[in-house]
Amino acid sequence: MTRNAVFLIRTADRKGLVAQITGFFACRDLNILSCRQYTDVLEQKYYMRIAVELPAGLTKAELESEFAKLAAELELSYSVHYSGEVQNVAVMVSKTSHCLYDLLTNSEENLLGGGRVTLVIGNHPELEEVAEKFRVPFYCCPLKESGDEKQEAQVMDLLERHRIDLVVLARYMRVLSDNFISRYPERIINIHHAFLPAFMGGNPYQRAWERGVKMIGATAHYATADLDEGPIIEQDVERITHESLPEELRQRGRDIERRVLTRAVRAHLEHRVITSGRRTIVFSV
Amino acid sequence: MTRNAVFLIRTADRKGLVAQITGFFACRDLNILSCRQYTDVLEQKYYMRIAVELPAGLTKAELESEFAKLAAELELSYSVHYSGEVQNVAVMVSKTSHCLYDLLTNSEENLLGGGRVTLVIGNHPELEEVAEKFRVPFYCCPLKESGDEKQEAQVMDLLERHRIDLVVLARYMRVLSDNFISRYPERIINIHHAFLPAFMGGNPYQRAWERGVKMIGATAHYATADLDEGPIIEQDVERITHESLPEELRQRGRDIERRVLTRAVRAHLEHRVITSGRRTIVFSV
Amino acid sequence: MTRNAVFLIRTADRKGLVAQITGFFACRDLNILSCRQYTDVLEQKYYMRIAVELPAGLTKAELESEFAKLAAELELSYSVHYSGEVQNVAVMVSKTSHCLYDLLTNSEENLLGGGRVTLVIGNHPELEEVAEKFRVPFYCCPLKESGDEKQEAQVMDLLERHRIDLVVLARYMRVLSDNFISRYPERIINIHHAFLPAFMGGNPYQRAWERGVKMIGATAHYATADLDEGPIIEQDVERITHESLPEELRQRGRDIERRVLTRAVRAHLEHRVITSGRRTIVFSV
Amino acid sequence: MTRNAVFLIRTADRKGLVAQITGFFACRDLNILSCRQYTDVLEQKYYMRIAVELPAGLTKAELESEFAKLAAELELSYSVHYSGEVQNVAVMVSKTSHCLYDLLTNSEENLLGGGRVTLVIGNHPELEEVAEKFRVPFYCCPLKESGDEKQEAQVMDLLERHRIDLVVLARYMRVLSDNFISRYPERIINIHHAFLPAFMGGNPYQRAWERGVKMIGATAHYATADLDEGPIIEQDVERITHESLPEELRQRGRDIERRVLTRAVRAHLEHRVITSGRRTIVFSV
Repeated sequence: MTRNAVFLIRTADRKGLVAQITGFFACRDLNILSCRQYTDVLEQKYYMRIAVELPAGLTKAELESEFAKLAAELELSYSVHYSGEVQNVAVMVSKTSHCLYDLLTNSEENLLGGGRVTLVIGNHPELEEVAEKFRVPFYCCPLKESGDEKQEAQVMDLLERHRIDLVVLARYMRVLSDNFISRYPERIINIHHAFLPAFMGGNPYQRAWERGVKMIGATAHYATADLDEGPIIEQDVERITHESLPEELRQRGRDIERRVLTRAVRAHLEHRVITSGRRTIVFSV
Repeated sequence: MTRNAVFLIRTADRKGLVAQITGFFACRDLNILSCRQYTDVLEQKYYMRIAVELPAGLTKAELESEFAKLAAELELSYSVHYSGEVQNVAVMVSKTSHCLYDLLTNSEENLLGGGRVTLVIGNHPELEEVAEKFRVPFYCCPLKESGDEKQEAQVMDLLERHRIDLVVLARYMRVLSDNFISRYPERIINIHHAFLPAFMGGNPYQRAWERGVKMIGATAHYATADLDEGPIIEQDVERITHESLPEELRQRGRDIERRVLTRAVRAHLEHRVITSGRRTIVFSV
Repeated sequence: MTRNAVFLIRTADRKGLVAQITGFFACRDLNILSCRQYTDVLEQKYYMRIAVELPAGLTKAELESEFAKLAAELELSYSVHYSGEVQNVAVMVSKTSHCLYDLLTNSEENLLGGGRVTLVIGNHPELEEVAEKFRVPFYCCPLKESGDEKQEAQVMDLLERHRIDLVVLARYMRVLSDNFISRYPERIINIHHAFLPAFMGGNPYQRAWERGVKMIGATAHYATADLDEGPIIEQDVERITHESLPEELRQRGRDIERRVLTRAVRAHLEHRVITSGRRTIVFSV
Repeated sequence: MTRNAVFLIRTADRKGLVAQITGFFACRDLNILSCRQYTDVLEQKYYMRIAVELPAGLTKAELESEFAKLAAELELSYSVHYSGEVQNVAVMVSKTSHCLYDLLTNSEENLLGGGRVTLVIGNHPELEEVAEKFRVPFYCCPLKESGDEKQEAQVMDLLERHRIDLVVLARYMRVLSDNFISRYPERIINIHHAFLPAFMGGNPYQRAWERGVKMIGATAHYATADLDEGPIIEQDVERITHESLPEELRQRGRDIERRVLTRAVRAHLEHRVITSGRRTIVFSV
């Protein structure tokens, strides 16, 4: 059984980078499965996702120690990930179930890259039953107001104990504190139920109806200290007409929200996303 | 040769309206070609577009005088339009030609409902050549700053003399004065090169790139005193990736802008649009 | 608590129909909630969906008996449906779970119009566990070959006993006999994993890859004796690139299949679909 | 003024290719502007598009002679293209003008990659006026039946004399002979007014209406001896409803056809397309 390694790399752009990095693997006779790159010519930065096959004789430690030398020499920032290492995903919810269902279903069908939903946390007890259907532990951590320190400590403790790699805010409807967010940089994905930057903040479907837009959308992004301002991973929209009342927009929006969120989570768990300031590079597989 | 009449109707919603209005035409043995209606249940308003065939024996004056009685009785606001009466369209431009080309081409191919582009006004001389290709008169009305009274007077004079029914701002890039706009209520259509209400105001493609959105769009709306706030007629978007620099967004955006603008102009000229505050009802054909 | 009635009507097109039908309800002072119509000018046919509020004093029997007179007079074919009467949906599956999950989830969230999934039948036992999660009875009815009479008798018996109103073939992968299909006219919805009429028959994703198409799609249609030829209710597509191998198409396709199938089932259960030969009229809500 | 060179490469897949090819340019200190690759793992083939900056001191001849050695060593099939070398495009038409307008407009606005429409050939005289608007020479080459040898000789003679690099069949509506097609391998692009492989052959909009599809589309592909079977470059679709009669589909389809055709022509002229049997690899810019 072969294992694969995926390197996500960023560095200052300059001549010769592709040749040097791919040369590293070629010299060691490693098979390159896919190699995606992107040069941000405006900011002179270079990004690469390279997936290679690990031959039987090579350990992860050996590969990493050798690559570390190249990285030092070329001043690469990077992370490395291995196929077959399951990533634990926690889903935080409130009372709305459609995104949670979609994530649990995809997890069950092995369609979340290398991830599995292994924990559900609600600030209300309503969705316990949904988590139970899929035999995933559910914890109810109620809170009085957004950023409640005690509740967040409780949540973080759960994330620790379940060795969570990625936190997904699946219509959690509460703002996390900066302290919480800074503990999980680029490891919290939120769904906003509008096509950002349109309709930031609360009640977007009502406001979309009032503004009379002809399409509604949803946006999945990494959570940052600034609400609704984090790097966008995925967006989608659907056409509506004058006939759609706010309630129908809300219903139509569910389909958009859940597919946008699941796609974003999948891209993250497949190690296809690199952030670049407020922007993301999302490589195809 | 049969002629058709289209009635656009709005009134307070109440029981029996459809039956009463369609009954009016049924009594007179007029053939209803299409009948679209919409009840805004939140605001208790009723909208109808009804197209009927005018038999040989019935004059427009007779039809209108009889319908006026019904309208008075039922307190209908309405307008009536006839097939075969060409609507004159003026296009106002600056230096960018893609929307102008699309409107002229569609006009030439008889694909603008009952409308024809019969006048092009630029605040720069660059696009004269484009108008000339299609043998449409071009006037250059330069202006020092947005809302220049003298220039606007000149433009309004041209619109009068050419008996213009609809003004299209095809990337005109200048703000018209309230005075100008109030003279042509719901008769000026503007294209904004973003998915409103995202990226209102200037330089939307640059800002879209900076924000890292995954789709770009365009919005056609009636011009009102509040810039970019008028009732939206049509919007569309296209998916982009991290690879698209602002310049490429601008280029990709051209295709979106021109098809959104042309669709909106077509809907207006086919008498399929009724405004309702900041919203529009756009009936299908 | 008010109840609503929905009439689905078809008849030969002629003058005065709207006025006559809406007049029927207006005379009785019934409130029309929505009224959609469509005139097929090529085939001279008229279709209407009209939803009215039932006042407290009027029984279903009274309404139906009075409407029957109008229908006889105007030669209307029609059916009538009431809000609050749950429709029972059976889902037939094989081994693939994504469509089943989507239907069960939407059923659980009350997003299937007035329908509920109350029965799951598999020709393999694999998906029993999925049905159980949602506490829906599952029966395994294995068959040796498509059209197995004995197995079909068993299935029809189950449908009878569970008073099933709609059968959904959610990647059932088997062809039903004409006898079976004729028992449930316009009451069996199938999902085909391609954009019909492209790639009819087996293995569409492999064939889509071989042909090098740039979009893949899915089609939900009423099952008829001719495989993949029934009236189409809903279709959708997604853009792919040269990079997508057949296996990835299959995976991407799941998202398309399940949303197309669920939308079609919802449209049917909301009484928004009327067939017209090989075509369907699908009214908006 | 810097020039760029674009190499389109195909070869059997094996280890080390990226490193070897990019190493070639790195050794010579050439700046890689973009490098896209694709490995067809099913057929063990490797494809690359690499764009490099040509420094002032390096001639095209020198670059090509050195690259030829690498290509021989690695058994690469390849072609090389230079920015700033205008490609001449001929458009063949019949009586329908929308695609021709779009190509001429994009040509005029310098939005056809490095291409310019420099010749229009019609089998009918109708569109001469359109070509003249854009001051592009128009020749009428009428023919009695598809594959008329004499007419094709006349056309080929025109293509020769105008040094045409790419032939675009913009609703030409006639089948070219195998002899003609084989003279311009991967240099003839056709638009089919349906979403291939659905509705191959004639009258697709009528057939789409009869079949009751819910979306219509268009397909641009390289012309090959088998009609409608050539490698697909671009496709797109739009949602329709039961209300759209064949004539409206035809009209709606125009917008789809012209944008699909123009995108495909642009991709070809930007040297972003490589064929692989019946499939195309279309790299992003």
